Amino acid sequence: MGWLPEEASGFRGIVKDLKRRAPKYVSDWTEGHNAKTTASIFFMFFTSIAPAITFAELLATTTEKIGVVEVCLSSCLSGMVFSVFAGQPLVIVGVTGPVTILTISIYGMAKALDISFLHFYAWAQIWAGLMHMAAAAAGLCDYIRYITNFSCHTFGMLIAVIYAVTGAVGIAKYYTRSQSFAACLMETILALGTTLLSLYLANASNWVIGNEKFRTFVSDYAPTVAIVIWTGISLVGRADDLGSDLTRLNVPRNFQTIGGRTWFLNLFDFPVWGIVLSLVPASIILILFIFDHNVSSIMAQSKEFQLKKGSAYHLDFFVLGICIVFTGILGIPPCNGLIPQAPLHTKSLCVVRKEKQHGVVVDVVERTYEQRYTNFSQALLTGVVCFRPLIGVLGQIPKACLDGLFLFMALSSLPGNELYERFCLVIAEPALRKSPHAWFRALDFATIKSFTKLQLAIAFVIYFVTLTPISMTFPLFIAALVYVRLKVLPKYFDEATLLALDPLIELAPDDPDGAKKDDFNGAAELVEDPRGAADEGKEGDAAAMPASDSSSNLLEAA
Amino acid sequence: MGWLPEEASGFRGIVKDLKRRAPKYVSDWTEGHNAKTTASIFFMFFTSIAPAITFAELLATTTEKIGVVEVCLSSCLSGMVFSVFAGQPLVIVGVTGPVTILTISIYGMAKALDISFLHFYAWAQIWAGLMHMAAAAAGLCDYIRYITNFSCHTFGMLIAVIYAVTGAVGIAKYYTRSQSFAACLMETILALGTTLLSLYLANASNWVIGNEKFRTFVSDYAPTVAIVIWTGISLVGRADDLGSDLTRLNVPRNFQTIGGRTWFLNLFDFPVWGIVLSLVPASIILILFIFDHNVSSIMAQSKEFQLKKGSAYHLDFFVLGICIVFTGILGIPPCNGLIPQAPLHTKSLCVVRKEKQHGVVVDVVERTYEQRYTNFSQALLTGVVCFRPLIGVLGQIPKACLDGLFLFMALSSLPGNELYERFCLVIAEPALRKSPHAWFRALDFATIKSFTKLQLAIAFVIYFVTLTPISMTFPLFIAALVYVRLKVLPKYFDEATLLALDPLIELAPDDPDGAKKDDFNGAAELVEDPRGAADEGKEGDAAAMPASDSSSNLLEAA
Repeated sequence: MGWLPEEASGFRGIVKDLKRRAPKYVSDWTEGHNAKTTASIFFMFFTSIAPAITFAELLATTTEKIGVVEVCLSSCLSGMVFSVFAGQPLVIVGVTGPVTILTISIYGMAKALDISFLHFYAWAQIWAGLMHMAAAAAGLCDYIRYITNFSCHTFGMLIAVIYAVTGAVGIAKYYTRSQSFAACLMETILALGTTLLSLYLANASNWVIGNEKFRTFVSDYAPTVAIVIWTGISLVGRADDLGSDLTRLNVPRNFQTIGGRTWFLNLFDFPVWGIVLSLVPASIILILFIFDHNVSSIMAQSKEFQLKKGSAYHLDFFVLGICIVFTGILGIPPCNGLIPQAPLHTKSLCVVRKEKQHGVVVDVVERTYEQRYTNFSQALLTGVVCFRPLIGVLGQIPKACLDGLFLFMALSSLPGNELYERFCLVIAEPALRKSPHAWFRALDFATIKSFTKLQLAIAFVIYFVTLTPISMTFPLFIAALVYVRLKVLPKYFDEATLLALDPLIELAPDDPDGAKKDDFNGAAELVEDPRGAADEGKEGDAAAMPASDSSSNLLEAA
Repeated sequence: MGWLPEEASGFRGIVKDLKRRAPKYVSDWTEGHNAKTTASIFFMFFTSIAPAITFAELLATTTEKIGVVEVCLSSCLSGMVFSVFAGQPLVIVGVTGPVTILTISIYGMAKALDISFLHFYAWAQIWAGLMHMAAAAAGLCDYIRYITNFSCHTFGMLIAVIYAVTGAVGIAKYYTRSQSFAACLMETILALGTTLLSLYLANASNWVIGNEKFRTFVSDYAPTVAIVIWTGISLVGRADDLGSDLTRLNVPRNFQTIGGRTWFLNLFDFPVWGIVLSLVPASIILILFIFDHNVSSIMAQSKEFQLKKGSAYHLDFFVLGICIVFTGILGIPPCNGLIPQAPLHTKSLCVVRKEKQHGVVVDVVERTYEQRYTNFSQALLTGVVCFRPLIGVLGQIPKACLDGLFLFMALSSLPGNELYERFCLVIAEPALRKSPHAWFRALDFATIKSFTKLQLAIAFVIYFVTLTPISMTFPLFIAALVYVRLKVLPKYFDEATLLALDPLIELAPDDPDGAKKDDFNGAAELVEDPRGAADEGKEGDAAAMPASDSSSNLLEAA
């Protein structure tokens, strides 16, 4: 049974991770204090806080129990714990979009059952945290090798649709509230202005003015800059005169929970059947995080970054479990690895030099500052924002800007998603179809078309699941995609077609005995075998695919 | 003295034009009545009416004496006369942006002198019309061969800047009027929405969905579609409730002048010194039209269209003069050839077939319906719009949409303007500079840079002239560019550099004796001589440039 990894026997993976990482622990705190790492701290803080606030606002609107302070506190505590205890401290953790969607589903379920949402949420996380620890001990993280582009891109499309609908519904709602027409229009301008300005600035890397550093800066900070500018506009002249008609971020006056509740819940003031039932969302959180956390972790440790200190997937997932238990006890959202922030963090720590390879100038990483305090400091900053006077600044942001940010996230996540790319090919005029992908030249277009239609249909079925009372189960459907890819699709498409459209991700063949399997860096070395070697054992002269390439394909799964 | 054309002796050019065109006159009315020509009528009507209304609204706001009816009537009458009597009836005439700018300047001058603007304007046109006839008789149209890209693109940049400022100032003014904030915001949305939607739709030719016909349609009708959509939005729900706070197009209830004056002015109820002084704006109109009308006419008769019936530049300019005398008597704006509508008109009448040449599929023109009634009918339709009930439809268009259209016209005119392209190269990061132009590879970049800086400086000097009391003289500055190119630039740049950056336009060398010079089609066959043969006589194995290429460079001079 090739499915079960070697580590699936006790704590072997975690212990190995600990043994390898422990000797390097002191250097994690002592080395690389310089301008580059300082810049990295602020860069990570800003790129993480904008989506965090956006999700927080969505949670505040729907659940009324979780707001900006809760989300920031979760990022702060989880980030600090993870940066201190994890084996790979480069992974930035935070509250993601899928977690937000799941939280809203859990809220809906609690409401339907007429039980306390916060208790239900807390117990789900406590169970989930414990499951994480067990899963880490069992070496379950290794299963990520079966998550191909088929799952990642269907997931990405689903998230894009949900974000787009969230943003659009947010904007439409301005016109149903009983406020002045001027406020409705101003909020529409703020929302669409944020979307368009973010899209424009995010494209800065394609500009030709300035230098690359400047363009990358503008591109990376696009949503932050857009929110700052539109918040500024909303605070001057007649826009500011709109007063409370213009809805701004709902934040408390100082560090405290959104409803004024105490931080620690009385966990046992809750029916036992509720505690048992919370195992359902707990399992779903586990399934989501096996997928989501490990993909971000792999991307943060991509081969191009030339990391030296080694990885620790099992230990990391165990530490993540501890964090989730804690966030559960506090009744605040759980954190996991962030895409694209985690890989951006590693990239920001790389010292690169330009080198000409095959006539093309490329960046070659000379070294990467592998340390813990950039992650720790950015997490700390996220906490500081929850206190006066900074929390007052957050309270100035119009909610409309965040609706716009959702639209931006949806639109900017589509390029690079192969499902989206194939959809564009399907709707294009036949004479104008073109694609850089090998499958486009290798396969009959009718085959590509039926594969794409099927995948789109699946994506929309899952989307409609999220609109039903069982919306919470959507990560199960995502997980089921792995099964569909491995067991169902081969019934309708031949093996060569499937491997061309969706190559399986395998451990590098230079590591066949599992001796070094716990060093998961190997998984970042993806192998595309175009000749049909589907099962793991078979090798063949597989063409190595650059890890960064496949990583970037996963970006939209954030 | 190579400057003076052969025709510069009496009416020779006009007579030749008449003799050649007369035998084909009957067929101009009898042939080619089919679906293609019918579509062309409506296409031309819509692509001409949108900018016409925009300019009309600008004129109404500034002069209060010229509005939508005046501009449409001018297009209608001039178009009908031109289509019936001109030698080349494919040229669509109408009120252009430069004419609008000039009209506003004439208004400013009349105001400063405290004389009747309409009388001053009328006399200027009557003189100008007579001058046109004299110029046509003298064969002056041939001078257009000296108008190189240097003049065209400086002119284009100037117009783009003026349009951009007009649009932006229009939007800024919403906030200075004492209306509700909701109306200000709604107008801002309508303006920027029109700009962005127009830009988006105009890019349809680069889309891949649908077929080429659909994409070309969307692209050609972009501003019309954008105005229709945003006008629709402005008419529903709370936007419509804004009532008179939302400024709409100022049209009379039925066909009549904007202020209710009679159509025929008492021309002699005006001081004699004013009649004499109007010779100044008259000369400027002449200089502008020699430039603007003939460029559009050449473009409408580009070699690619395979026209068979021959051209008639001298006769056309004479007929244009007659039209200007008439518009002058009515006190409505003068018309001349429209760019890009004139070449679009011819293109819409071409029957093409796809052909593979050198491995690339190209459109080859099989025949073009050379006739008079498409032009005549679209002109007639423009007049019909001035009567009930259609005029009521025009009155529903928010003025803000037209401000947005100005921004669109400014932005969409820039690509293809070599001054703009070189400006982009100058501000680009040196490593990322790239250009398809031959001069980019042939010349030292420092030279390109100083040439571009000089040209930009000239463009902005002329722009600042338009802000002064002598703004009316801007066509003189444009005309002076020809002198600058031929006499001043050679002092600072060597001949090879100038010919690379700005090749002189010459009659095709296969027509050296002037025998067929009156068949101006030859001028569309532009010759680029990279080896430095500046004077007309010298031939050399000049590389023939496709006419359409150079024509498209002139598009922004509209």
